[in-house]
Amino acid sequence: MASPIAIIQGANRGLGLEFCKHILKNKTPASVIATCRNPDGAVDLRSLVREHPDRLTVLKLDVNREEDIREAAERVKSSFGGVDLIVNSSAILHPTGKGETSLRDVSAQGLISTLTTNTVGPLVMAKHFAPLLQKGGGGFGQQPVEKVKQHSGIIINITAKVGSIGDNGLGGWYSYRMSKAALNMATRNLSIELGRSRPIVVCVSLHPGTVNTDLSRPYHRNVPKDKLFSTQHSVNCLMKIIETLNIEKTGKVYSWDGNELPW
Amino acid sequence: MASPIAIIQGANRGLGLEFCKHILKNKTPASVIATCRNPDGAVDLRSLVREHPDRLTVLKLDVNREEDIREAAERVKSSFGGVDLIVNSSAILHPTGKGETSLRDVSAQGLISTLTTNTVGPLVMAKHFAPLLQKGGGGFGQQPVEKVKQHSGIIINITAKVGSIGDNGLGGWYSYRMSKAALNMATRNLSIELGRSRPIVVCVSLHPGTVNTDLSRPYHRNVPKDKLFSTQHSVNCLMKIIETLNIEKTGKVYSWDGNELPW
Ligand SMILES: NC(=O)c1ccc[n+]([C@@H]2O[C@H](COP(=O)([O-])OP(=O)(O)OC[C@H]3O[C@@H](n4cnc5c(N)ncnc54)[C@H](OP(=O)(O)O)[C@@H]3O)[C@@H](O)[C@H]2O)c1
Ligand SMILES: NC(=O)c1ccc[n+]([C@@H]2O[C@H](COP(=O)([O-])OP(=O)(O)OC[C@H]3O[C@@H](n4cnc5c(N)ncnc54)[C@H](OP(=O)(O)O)[C@@H]3O)[C@@H](O)[C@H]2O)c1
Repeated sequence: MASPIAIIQGANRGLGLEFCKHILKNKTPASVIATCRNPDGAVDLRSLVREHPDRLTVLKLDVNREEDIREAAERVKSSFGGVDLIVNSSAILHPTGKGETSLRDVSAQGLISTLTTNTVGPLVMAKHFAPLLQKGGGGFGQQPVEKVKQHSGIIINITAKVGSIGDNGLGGWYSYRMSKAALNMATRNLSIELGRSRPIVVCVSLHPGTVNTDLSRPYHRNVPKDKLFSTQHSVNCLMKIIETLNIEKTGKVYSWDGNELPW
Repeated sequence: MASPIAIIQGANRGLGLEFCKHILKNKTPASVIATCRNPDGAVDLRSLVREHPDRLTVLKLDVNREEDIREAAERVKSSFGGVDLIVNSSAILHPTGKGETSLRDVSAQGLISTLTTNTVGPLVMAKHFAPLLQKGGGGFGQQPVEKVKQHSGIIINITAKVGSIGDNGLGGWYSYRMSKAALNMATRNLSIELGRSRPIVVCVSLHPGTVNTDLSRPYHRNVPKDKLFSTQHSVNCLMKIIETLNIEKTGKVYSWDGNELPW
């Protein structure tokens, strides 16, 4: 069997970078394709390439540019043929770096930028990579014995608990919340379309917990220390969930502890 | 008590136009402010103005342009002071007029246009009109006896059942479904922010049923005749719901029959 291939989209920093490290360390001989906006400036990824020159490839991909996504998919197709896992990790809280605390902070431009990066980007990734996932070897997740229920690939959209409409008791963060709610709808839609054709592609949204990264940095002082996860801990939890995924679990939102979240 | 004032946003055709007619006919002496992209070409609204010159005002408002929204809010403020009801009715299925039947039809541009009109527009309306709704007289909905529970205004975002993530069993229509799921999150967030300050503004999403309008026209042949509502029937049902709204019912999605829909 061919060795598994994972694409981590938004891999320059934070959880995306940690997914690359985790897979390279724990899933030999899997290959990783790390995408980021600016490979030349991606210091951490470049040093990771020096450690794993045969297993890590870095590609330029700004998730706001459909052209970048199309070109990356073509390069992956010609070099690898198929893909077993895509993790869409890139996101912004808001172009200003801070979520809206009230309606006064809301602007059309802030909403559109956030929706473009957090929602449109991951779905356009799915569009261009779905054919490659359907050619994947099913190297991630759990394969049932029954052949017709086996999957060839997995799409992970990294969402957030604050994107759960039913769980929303606090308000605020309009752009980010709306972008993740819409992303969860994209996941659901993808799971239906890619679950009814064969080979199956499994699609879920995952909430990583509150994690010590740049995205959440402005809010760290409000988080109890034991609730602020390291990227290692969060990715450990998420990869455990990913390795249990199969067609029965598609089309849902799971939290880092494996529990399903409401829409 | 001052006579109630309603703003119908997206009033040139379809359900928006019908909301104007319904209120002018059934809620004397309420005033209606109808907004549309092109007042000069708004034939039906202009003939309605001839019937109700003292009660109907038409304003230019492209919901994709925050400047238009800001200017309309300023004009309403100086002419009316406050507002009792806003209905955000404008939407598109997709810039092509047809919902995506599969991932192949998905494009970044189509997603962004749909999200801008259907999701960003209504929230930016809420931003600019919230201060006017807080100065409203509570002329729509049901006022509880207890003064602190009374509301001054109501925001209605017209959503769609296909925007319910939990109810999604068919897939397809990516842009439209995602835009309405994100709109429902906006409604939820608005209900929290505008429910905790005083005076209260009540915010709900309403699903009008499948209605005989241009938006759904490409699909009418697939709809059983008794399931395809006239705009009159749909607006009748929706206005009945609106007239029962109060703080207890805020922050939810209701269908034309009054039943709550899942997120
Ligand atoms: N951290 C948390 O507490 C938390 C909680 C819930 C959910 N999440 C989710 O977890 C995921 C990862 O976030 P994180 O905490 O790792 O954030 P992070 O450290 O801020 O990293 C964000 C990454 O997204 C990339 N990115 C932003 N815009 C991009 C674009 N247009 N094209 C390509 N890449 C782009 C950034 O690239 P550059 O380095 O080039 O800027 C960066 O690598 C996100 O989906 C986030 O919503 C995080
Ligand atoms: N019809 C159905 O079966 C159905 C089902 C579920 C939900 N809905 C929802 O019901 C609401 C009303 O739809 P409808 O059926 O009445 O559709 P419609 O007959 O196609 O009318 C759509 C209206 O939206 C306006 N509009 C579009 N883009 C705009 C923009 N950028 N700025 C301002 N106005 C804009 C249009 O203005 P112009 O006239 O200038 O183009 C038109 O007046 C929508 O939110 C729709 O999603 C409809």
